[in-house]
Amino acid sequence: MLKPEILDPQGQAVQRALPRLGFDGIADVRQGKRFELEVAGPVDDAALARIHEMAETFLANTVIEDFTVKVEESK
Amino acid sequence: MLKPEILDPQGQAVQRALPRLGFDGIADVRQGKRFELEVAGPVDDAALARIHEMAETFLANTVIEDFTVKVEESK
Repeated sequence: MLKPEILDPQGQAVQRALPRLGFDGIADVRQGKRFELEVAGPVDDAALARIHEMAETFLANTVIEDFTVKVEESK
Repeated sequence: MLKPEILDPQGQAVQRALPRLGFDGIADVRQGKRFELEVAGPVDDAALARIHEMAETFLANTVIEDFTVKVEESK
């Protein structure tokens, strides 16, 4: 997600459109990206550390974006 | 996220780039969108139903995309 101090024109456009479309009560909208990585093998600490490094160096632009890494069971 | 049967060229590009960048062991990458909505007032069943409708009719393109709604405490 974009850092809180970075302007998010896409999110603002969505937020402004909602009342016109009949959706009230949304105070703020931010838009961001999401990557689903399917890991081959066990998701241990080493794999997570590698994914964290991948996110930091390659998937996210850490000058303007924050990121979080979450583990989910595959469906 | 794009539905599993829909081709995801962005995710594929990321997946192909990873080994070149020294990251192995990722079997698949899918890229999608994420919206953070800040709700004014309580996040009750009515608010969640409204947000679900909003996602279905407006935020996601349900012809090609799946979506999930998750509730998180604001920081």
